[in-house]
Amino acid sequence: MAKAYDINHPTLVLARDLISRRSVTPNDAACQKLMAERLAPLGFDIESMVFSDTTNMWARRKKTGPLFCFAGHTDVVPAGDENDWDTPPFQPVDKDGVLYGRGAADMKGSLAAMIVATERFIEQHPDHAGSIAFLITSDEEGPFINGTVKVIETLEARNEKIDWCLVGEPSSTNYCGDVVKYGRRGSLTGYLTVNGIQGHVAYPHLARNPVHQVAPALAELAAEVWDEGNAAFPPTSFQIVDVQAGTGATNVVPGKVKIAFNLRFSTESTAETLKSRILHILNKHELTYSIDWTLNGLPFLTEHGPLVTATKAAVKKIAGEEPELSTAGGTSDGRFIAPTGAQVIELGPVNATIHKVNENVSHRDLIDLTDMYEEILIQMLVN
Amino acid sequence: MAKAYDINHPTLVLARDLISRRSVTPNDAACQKLMAERLAPLGFDIESMVFSDTTNMWARRKKTGPLFCFAGHTDVVPAGDENDWDTPPFQPVDKDGVLYGRGAADMKGSLAAMIVATERFIEQHPDHAGSIAFLITSDEEGPFINGTVKVIETLEARNEKIDWCLVGEPSSTNYCGDVVKYGRRGSLTGYLTVNGIQGHVAYPHLARNPVHQVAPALAELAAEVWDEGNAAFPPTSFQIVDVQAGTGATNVVPGKVKIAFNLRFSTESTAETLKSRILHILNKHELTYSIDWTLNGLPFLTEHGPLVTATKAAVKKIAGEEPELSTAGGTSDGRFIAPTGAQVIELGPVNATIHKVNENVSHRDLIDLTDMYEEILIQMLVN
Repeated sequence: MAKAYDINHPTLVLARDLISRRSVTPNDAACQKLMAERLAPLGFDIESMVFSDTTNMWARRKKTGPLFCFAGHTDVVPAGDENDWDTPPFQPVDKDGVLYGRGAADMKGSLAAMIVATERFIEQHPDHAGSIAFLITSDEEGPFINGTVKVIETLEARNEKIDWCLVGEPSSTNYCGDVVKYGRRGSLTGYLTVNGIQGHVAYPHLARNPVHQVAPALAELAAEVWDEGNAAFPPTSFQIVDVQAGTGATNVVPGKVKIAFNLRFSTESTAETLKSRILHILNKHELTYSIDWTLNGLPFLTEHGPLVTATKAAVKKIAGEEPELSTAGGTSDGRFIAPTGAQVIELGPVNATIHKVNENVSHRDLIDLTDMYEEILIQMLVN
Repeated sequence: MAKAYDINHPTLVLARDLISRRSVTPNDAACQKLMAERLAPLGFDIESMVFSDTTNMWARRKKTGPLFCFAGHTDVVPAGDENDWDTPPFQPVDKDGVLYGRGAADMKGSLAAMIVATERFIEQHPDHAGSIAFLITSDEEGPFINGTVKVIETLEARNEKIDWCLVGEPSSTNYCGDVVKYGRRGSLTGYLTVNGIQGHVAYPHLARNPVHQVAPALAELAAEVWDEGNAAFPPTSFQIVDVQAGTGATNVVPGKVKIAFNLRFSTESTAETLKSRILHILNKHELTYSIDWTLNGLPFLTEHGPLVTATKAAVKKIAGEEPELSTAGGTSDGRFIAPTGAQVIELGPVNATIHKVNENVSHRDLIDLTDMYEEILIQMLVN
């Protein structure tokens, strides 16, 4: 039998308020103002950092180290066709113990839990050790140019260091806390153009078909074992994500083919070794090509230490089971924070409905998450 | 030193008149009316056959066999951006012995040469043997649904048989008559869709990448030797003409890839054997796929006989050299006429600029072509 809970739990109330604000990337829609109004009375200094179209908030309580930071984002992905939703995406709806709305799971529910946990914690432990901060952006779902990256640059420039960072991304699979992310794979994208010679299919000797030329290279790239992964990371994976060739006419040999591919890579490989191995395969096939690379993020891993220990203990206390520590899944803004030397961990609700219609989070997840966040604060700044 | 000629040669005058009519497929722009006005006084019965958006003309002089037919089209491909042309595409311009304009070479120049050659021939040989006909369409460059195909169906239904057919397509490479087409390869197009399972690149174990799956099959298809050709035909060629996969996002494994390919095939292969061999290769790679086929035309060959002999003799007489007999190059409406049992041959001007900006034909080509057509009429219907 499920534990009884209050439908007006302060985390649920705040989450509903945040969901009702239409903060599609890069709009913040005053979500950060709402959060700041809760943090300022607790003794947080609020710093708004607006870069271009993006609104960021850096809020910090106390000046001493170590610095514990909650990180997250107020922006949400677009709702798509709102008619595809059972309920309006920007009107929070509660039904059968579940809160529906865009951002419910990714990650306005987590933001609400962070605020409520901090309120409770400070009420009990006003003289806690160290400092608490919030690093909140409005472009985590977008091009990630003017968000966390720029805030971190600003902090680094004034030598303000985060020691421990808890990212509220929805990390869980079946219930809140079953999976905690303690690292992420790197992400490298290649944009390959293979050039041939366009021509009429009736005169193949005057043309050179770039699709024919690149096909064996693609087969080889797809079959390549890049590494075997390690205890923390699954093996590096390579995926062709886009192929475009042809004029639309069936009598024209295309003059070029454009191919995009993405690698999610473990700490057993580096962006440089991967690029080098890919170029080696392409060169073996004597292609005429050009290639551009985008390094979306380096892999990071938070080795076992105080933050991991505290998080495991908090999850065990609230959920009854220790979490699985994982590095699987997509990228998050943790990749921009980890390179400063911070320990970074991600703990949030079940991610089954994120980026989909009828996004939702269970009341239970948000209430448990609030308790877990509070427990982690206690472990890190009191015990 | 080039032979002297009259800039007001009647073929050039008529070609200019035809070029000035904007007859982009399927529009005839009254080109056939202009031709009919020249043919009717010579004793041709004019039959206009309009099918849907396409205008066709069947003109015939005399009822007796054998029936010699000129075949061609009044439509032209679009000019593209007219600013890319040095001269307006639908205003004929003469410069340095060359006539410029869309359709100059493909094939309004040939139509003019056919008319003038016929006028001259009938003036000299009003009581020629057999019959002369013109089969002219306005959709050779388009979907070829309502053009020559339908006219041939009409003729077949009333048992009206073409014995010898001279198609005016631009067959020549360096000078008019250096190459004569006496057959064409078949053309088979395949539209392949390979299905995988769409997913996030971060979770490759939940996706199945159809590009990865099909790449080795494409490599094998591209490397396959389909046949060696024969004395009349070059080897069958396979060309991938279109590939489309991906959502545009670099973090999504595409759910399917669509591939179009075209084969130009010799009489050493058949559409059925080619399909079977392609399916065999696809099946070896255990793909989940669907495929649609379009048979654009069967290969045909006009074996050496009276029409080939007459054409060779006419070219030799005017150009000084016998032509090369070839089956290379693209399809033409000859593929619809040959299956009725007609001997089909193609003779026209240099094709270097067809379907391009600044399309042109030399005055010399059109004057020689007129003489060649007249000589062929004499060989076939008088000698």
